[in-house]
Amino acid sequence: MQDFIIIGHKAVTTGGFSLNDMPGSAGRMDILCRCINSVFFLSHDLRRDVQAHLLLLGEPNSPRLIRFNGEKLRYLNPDERSAGALIKKALELDNISSLETRSTPGVWVREAGMQTLLDEFARDGRKIFYLREDGKDIRHMAEETKDSVFVLGDHLGLTEDEESLVLEMSAGTISLGPLSLHADHCIILIHNELDRLTTSQIER
Amino acid sequence: MQDFIIIGHKAVTTGGFSLNDMPGSAGRMDILCRCINSVFFLSHDLRRDVQAHLLLLGEPNSPRLIRFNGEKLRYLNPDERSAGALIKKALELDNISSLETRSTPGVWVREAGMQTLLDEFARDGRKIFYLREDGKDIRHMAEETKDSVFVLGDHLGLTEDEESLVLEMSAGTISLGPLSLHADHCIILIHNELDRLTTSQIER
Repeated sequence: MQDFIIIGHKAVTTGGFSLNDMPGSAGRMDILCRCINSVFFLSHDLRRDVQAHLLLLGEPNSPRLIRFNGEKLRYLNPDERSAGALIKKALELDNISSLETRSTPGVWVREAGMQTLLDEFARDGRKIFYLREDGKDIRHMAEETKDSVFVLGDHLGLTEDEESLVLEMSAGTISLGPLSLHADHCIILIHNELDRLTTSQIER
Repeated sequence: MQDFIIIGHKAVTTGGFSLNDMPGSAGRMDILCRCINSVFFLSHDLRRDVQAHLLLLGEPNSPRLIRFNGEKLRYLNPDERSAGALIKKALELDNISSLETRSTPGVWVREAGMQTLLDEFARDGRKIFYLREDGKDIRHMAEETKDSVFVLGDHLGLTEDEESLVLEMSAGTISLGPLSLHADHCIILIHNELDRLTTSQIER
């Protein structure tokens, strides 16, 4: 399984946002929605062995951590509004605590931050990789990145504190090519690298 | 320059559609919007040396061909609604003919179909590639695909007639990996392959 953590520094933490203004008043929620699309969609199918963890750090109830699980996920269509509607439903729950609550099939929400999430992955022995332009080319280390956790920033990247935390716990930084790309585009490139690996193993 | 042709078989050909229902009543216009995002966006920048050609074949005024040019493009944000709004403005023009009319900076619209567009590229000596799962792996032919035209289908793929036309005029079919992917995801993988080529040439 691959896990993708995407940080939305300004993403609002209330279900009261408008699906018609996700880039504006919802705090660039559109970025997180596009990441959900990239994590899960194949042509006429969903990727099942994968999870997305959206860390929302905007007003008024930061932090909120929303987990999407491919195996259980339902009611997701490829458009941004569809992912936005599932995020909205998760944030609308009125009993959000540090324990996960399911909002819709395959979607859970809790009050938790980056440290908690990374600690959990580390405890499970999962390798954590940070995506950064000066990292090691994924094409030279695809095998190492199987079944890993990938941390991606939004349009603001990661803060210094976040970056220190991630680097301290990570197995390394990886890059995907010569240009700096949006998080949702990075996810597509990671998937492709791992898809190629899996298939070439099947063929052997 | 790279050119991407994306076919929207059901995409409506009137500006009267709602930005709130692009997957439904607008005929999967959301697919074309996501392709626009993939063609143009870098992190905090736009790709300039690239064009997108959206071929809209839905009711009531099919065909409509909308060209987005990266060098001239303005008013485009990464969210689906932003691309949708530019498409809407193009379709709202009341003097659409076989000659291109500019709707907003970097966006032109005309009445033209696939045959016309492919003929123009062929006349300019451009290589045309068709994306299909059984094609040749782009990683083995990246150099050949520089400055080319890439043809991608929507959720319906290409019709038999369209496929015959494209294959007749194409320099080959290419594949991007072992799984069948959405058109907007394919564009990301093509860009990455060519980005890697360009940069490794600069380094030499």
